[in-house]
Amino acid sequence: MSLTIKLTISPRIINLNCHERNRTKFPAIRPKPIYHSNALNPILYNNKRPGMIQASVSGTVIKSSLIEPDGGVLVDVIVPESERGSKTLEAESLPKARLAKIDVEWVHVISEGWASPLKGFMRENEYLQSLHFNSLRMENRTVVNMSLPIVLAIDDETKESIGSSKDVGLVGPEGDLLAILRSIEIYKHNKEERIARTWGTTAPGLPYVEEFIAPAGNWLLGGDLEVLKPIKYNDGLDHYRLSPKQLRKEFDRRQADAVFAFQLRNPVHNGHALLMNDTRRRLLEMGYKNPILLLHPLGGFTKADDVPLDVRMEQHSKVLEDGVLDPETTIVAVFPSPMHYAGPTEVQWHAKARVNAGANFYIVGRDPAGMGHPTEKRDLYDPDHGKKVLSMAQGLEKLNILPFRVAAYDTVAKKMAFFDPSRSKEFLFISGTKMRAYARNGENPPDGFMCPGGWEVLVKYYEQLQAEEAMPVVASA
Amino acid sequence: MSLTIKLTISPRIINLNCHERNRTKFPAIRPKPIYHSNALNPILYNNKRPGMIQASVSGTVIKSSLIEPDGGVLVDVIVPESERGSKTLEAESLPKARLAKIDVEWVHVISEGWASPLKGFMRENEYLQSLHFNSLRMENRTVVNMSLPIVLAIDDETKESIGSSKDVGLVGPEGDLLAILRSIEIYKHNKEERIARTWGTTAPGLPYVEEFIAPAGNWLLGGDLEVLKPIKYNDGLDHYRLSPKQLRKEFDRRQADAVFAFQLRNPVHNGHALLMNDTRRRLLEMGYKNPILLLHPLGGFTKADDVPLDVRMEQHSKVLEDGVLDPETTIVAVFPSPMHYAGPTEVQWHAKARVNAGANFYIVGRDPAGMGHPTEKRDLYDPDHGKKVLSMAQGLEKLNILPFRVAAYDTVAKKMAFFDPSRSKEFLFISGTKMRAYARNGENPPDGFMCPGGWEVLVKYYEQLQAEEAMPVVASA
Repeated sequence: MSLTIKLTISPRIINLNCHERNRTKFPAIRPKPIYHSNALNPILYNNKRPGMIQASVSGTVIKSSLIEPDGGVLVDVIVPESERGSKTLEAESLPKARLAKIDVEWVHVISEGWASPLKGFMRENEYLQSLHFNSLRMENRTVVNMSLPIVLAIDDETKESIGSSKDVGLVGPEGDLLAILRSIEIYKHNKEERIARTWGTTAPGLPYVEEFIAPAGNWLLGGDLEVLKPIKYNDGLDHYRLSPKQLRKEFDRRQADAVFAFQLRNPVHNGHALLMNDTRRRLLEMGYKNPILLLHPLGGFTKADDVPLDVRMEQHSKVLEDGVLDPETTIVAVFPSPMHYAGPTEVQWHAKARVNAGANFYIVGRDPAGMGHPTEKRDLYDPDHGKKVLSMAQGLEKLNILPFRVAAYDTVAKKMAFFDPSRSKEFLFISGTKMRAYARNGENPPDGFMCPGGWEVLVKYYEQLQAEEAMPVVASA
Repeated sequence: MSLTIKLTISPRIINLNCHERNRTKFPAIRPKPIYHSNALNPILYNNKRPGMIQASVSGTVIKSSLIEPDGGVLVDVIVPESERGSKTLEAESLPKARLAKIDVEWVHVISEGWASPLKGFMRENEYLQSLHFNSLRMENRTVVNMSLPIVLAIDDETKESIGSSKDVGLVGPEGDLLAILRSIEIYKHNKEERIARTWGTTAPGLPYVEEFIAPAGNWLLGGDLEVLKPIKYNDGLDHYRLSPKQLRKEFDRRQADAVFAFQLRNPVHNGHALLMNDTRRRLLEMGYKNPILLLHPLGGFTKADDVPLDVRMEQHSKVLEDGVLDPETTIVAVFPSPMHYAGPTEVQWHAKARVNAGANFYIVGRDPAGMGHPTEKRDLYDPDHGKKVLSMAQGLEKLNILPFRVAAYDTVAKKMAFFDPSRSKEFLFISGTKMRAYARNGENPPDGFMCPGGWEVLVKYYEQLQAEEAMPVVASA
């Protein structure tokens, strides 16, 4: 079976096929671009001293040795400890807006610079550019990617209470003061248009829409954030929530000369592991000396039937313990963003945020950030559109995109392998949904689908879930 | 009342307010840009000999003295007469796809270069970029605006009959061979996604959707066009259908040093005339010697209750005859595109096409290309979004955008005037819908709303329409 990762679709996708025949065609491992050159930037940077950090005058700016954050500077809007007291006092004196749990996730995302150069919730100018162009134009005329509207909805009452104040205090769901929003702008929240342009459908049953947009207020509140202290969840997983700044430091500390990010919201099976290991092997073949894998599970909102973050983190640990992935060359951290399930629109956000965290290679597979259509029997998005749109995305030209062929269970070799269409009948496709069904029903997947330690974590989770579901609900008197 | 055209919203919108106070602020009549500089290109070009045409090697390329077509070269895919015979023979031998009337309008649009640099119906790469980024990236990394998907839908049967052919003959509704589509690509037509991302809604009742997308096939056929002969309609209006090439020649012949385009699909009333004349006056104040108005009614599909093209053209003629607009400095021509009623998405197309025709100033008003929401009692789009999105649009940075304050009937001065919010009760708003209702009901609008000659044309049209509607339908035996 061929392990070729095939270049089928795109101008800016790197062909990792290093067969001799193709080597001749592309001798300098630079694919012929259709729209623009996509030089393998890190190769050019190899002369730089690894680990070098360019500090700005303010001392808080970190530039990666591998790839610049969008806008050139990593946003960090967490108030320094020395100013915390005075800012908190000021925040107390301001009109307030109450945040939902999802808003706190976005405050977290913005505060650490995942959405750089965005410094707060979008004002209308940014919102419209995001909706219409999936990108923002900077003062210096450069364009950065920004495919999801990152906005804060408020209701009529809150709008009324803000009145003509220029700044607003943001209060968490528990009533604690979290942040100040500066130089605010209030504008209409046209939910129908937001949903249609973001998801490409307005069908009922989109998880993020039903949970957060439908019940939200009819106004959007934009402005620059000042976050009073780092957002923590105290769920035993905060140490996994490395900020882009911390990740960049860690890549430099490890002297990475390439960082390839893998976004996921499911347990890691051996098909995932195959392609991550294969990618590393190929990057080594391409001349990189120390490619580092950023295994980067999404930690914010996910839909109800996805496996919860704590279970996934335990499962990911087992995968490293069991030696399926090499801990020496892997960093596991949590990406704090909530999930939109908005396919080609969202995969741009997933990639862009990883650029800000210092990854210069991004792995993209079939139907990224996709799901089934909520009301029709089909995928919501064309499974190939995610990687196509990503490869053409405005503002992501500097990122090297690594598409992969789908992996499936090879019933002859009894292991996960890249799907070979010439022997299609010998492959078994095990989707996330199917995997979860196996675990839920106490069935074992075929041998070699997932490392035993990792599988055990899932089985235990579903046993516990079923036990909880079977428990009688005791009504309080 | 102030005649100031107010700069309220945007980085790239030209402030036409030339009061002395502001002159001091912007001495070089260059507004301070927010995102990027928006030099008044034509001023820089004033040293060029007016009328100069840069011909390419092939002899078919025209570069305007005022503004370059998108992609640098005006597309012209009409087969030269000398090759018509052989190409027609070839087309006859190819598998065929049948065009609907709307498709012929798009063939017309593409053939003359309104959509430059697009050379045919979009392939999937272009379609996805249009849907997600409202723009296309060129080989040289520059970005051109392209907000509407210009696509050709085919059904399963046609797809089947095309088989693996690389080229397809395109046949008009009357069975006549119109064009060859080269190096074709067939891909899925996901109507729901196309509609949601283009209109920002999927509500039933969008005219273009109901008429053309809902009944269309489930596949899209992309490729490069070769049009066998210029598209003509033989409706007595073809002489108004000047191509971008012809318009550019005419602007040069008239030695225009600024061309300001006015898109419309309604009869011209004195409010329109006020702002067109006022714009000219201000351009003269800014230093232009010979600003030319391109009065550019849309000639393709419009919804059933809009006034038909022939009536509008007659009305526009009267407006010039009656001296409301100056024929010496006005060119009236028909823009052959069909209307989407897609608001902020479509206004970009309207502006981009006029860039290709040589206009370097574009007038934009309230709710361009908008309409009422088809199922809710509100405007489909925020009336301000059109000009905001246009001012931020990818690939339109070189165009000078002229927003205008809404004009209304001043019941004190008894004429159309720019609306003055401080005397709002003294103004009467007469929308296109209201104007049509007056004419339909045989009522006269207030004195000074429209020149008498122009109004008479409308009244005559509605009288005739009502007479036709009242006629008994004779069933054929």
